[in-house]
Amino acid sequence: MKKNFKLIIEYDGTLFSGWQRQPKETTIQGELESVLGVILNQEIKIFGSGRTDAGVHALGQVASFHADTRMDPVILKKGMNSLMKHPIVIRDCSHVNSEFHARYNAKSKEYNYFILNRPDPCAIGASYIWHVKRPLDPDPMNKCCGLITGTHDFKSFENTGSPRSSTVRQIFFARIQPQTENRLVFKISATGFLKNMVRNLVGTLVDVGLKKISVKDFETILGAGNRNLAGITAPAKGLFLKQVYYS
Amino acid sequence: MKKNFKLIIEYDGTLFSGWQRQPKETTIQGELESVLGVILNQEIKIFGSGRTDAGVHALGQVASFHADTRMDPVILKKGMNSLMKHPIVIRDCSHVNSEFHARYNAKSKEYNYFILNRPDPCAIGASYIWHVKRPLDPDPMNKCCGLITGTHDFKSFENTGSPRSSTVRQIFFARIQPQTENRLVFKISATGFLKNMVRNLVGTLVDVGLKKISVKDFETILGAGNRNLAGITAPAKGLFLKQVYYS
Repeated sequence: MKKNFKLIIEYDGTLFSGWQRQPKETTIQGELESVLGVILNQEIKIFGSGRTDAGVHALGQVASFHADTRMDPVILKKGMNSLMKHPIVIRDCSHVNSEFHARYNAKSKEYNYFILNRPDPCAIGASYIWHVKRPLDPDPMNKCCGLITGTHDFKSFENTGSPRSSTVRQIFFARIQPQTENRLVFKISATGFLKNMVRNLVGTLVDVGLKKISVKDFETILGAGNRNLAGITAPAKGLFLKQVYYS
Repeated sequence: MKKNFKLIIEYDGTLFSGWQRQPKETTIQGELESVLGVILNQEIKIFGSGRTDAGVHALGQVASFHADTRMDPVILKKGMNSLMKHPIVIRDCSHVNSEFHARYNAKSKEYNYFILNRPDPCAIGASYIWHVKRPLDPDPMNKCCGLITGTHDFKSFENTGSPRSSTVRQIFFARIQPQTENRLVFKISATGFLKNMVRNLVGTLVDVGLKKISVKDFETILGAGNRNLAGITAPAKGLFLKQVYYS
């Protein structure tokens, strides 16, 4: 009888062509299915909580899959980590009930986005942070975080290419936190995210922090439902899928 | 007339064959001299505060050089950062008096060594941290840090290959600090360090943290002046030259 497994996965997205399996590309899904295929000697199809784009990292991506095996999940985790050729680490592997689906059952997700805010670029960890040279004022950025918290239509922050039944999402929390050594982190948790939504929010929040646009302008952009009004899509490398929540 | 310049340098040592210029190898000194040669149109020889080994990183390496130029140090810094092809960033460039020498005038240095202490390896930032699987107890490790603080002969923690007039060094501070997410950092500041001294101390401290050896054993090793008694040389990738102090 097939068992259902849940994985919690950390990965460095730098050299991957994103989560989703694609022919001839190195993807996280592809690598995981390949390693599982070797260990379990059967074709495995895994379902992620969502797709991350090329260059986006994860500390707590979740995936589920069914497999015809009696292998203990702890042994399976060890086997996967020992066979992994790429920077992917299984942080947890467990049995879940047969109905569990990593995408359909996800209640909310938290993303973190890291910004290095200083004139000099960085040599250490440059593939994990977006370098913004000119000084950012976190106060108006946090006022905008207040504006997006709650339930809103985020059409202005959605890139095309991934049709959704609705562009309304509920944001549980959103804030900019200064860290040490000229670093800022944008933390956001929501029921779900539209295509490139976090990176588009970051690009627009940075415009606010740089005083290119005002908090009022940000409010107008949010209400307009027009992607052309919002800022750039911030680079993938600063983005981390932090955690996926299930009920 | 020649001017004397001081640089403060950040670099990711992962792909370098260490600090010191070598034919046919990519080194930090070699890259810096090459970039300076292009900008200043003359052959430049720089002096680092010390050599870092292959794979060792720096947040605040210091170097000095004389050059026949009227170029403003701020402009020189910008030029260097814009021409750098490798992960090296000039954090500061300034004029110093003609006698200043980055190595001879260094009063003390601080190194930081990062350890990931959890069963799972890491996918994010794996080139900046040493993964130690089994749990470390920081308390006896910190007792050993107390033992090395002050003036001692560190012959037991010196690798051969770099003859010194004395193996006695003064440690200003040494401690193990737990950080978030199963990370520990070993911070040490001293008048100077013997070859691989920090990494040899870390290798032996980890033996203490794993309860392979006791604090008393560590004390015996320190007093014995015998490298064969101490632990392994911890991997280069966890080590950062944090700061160099001048009077």
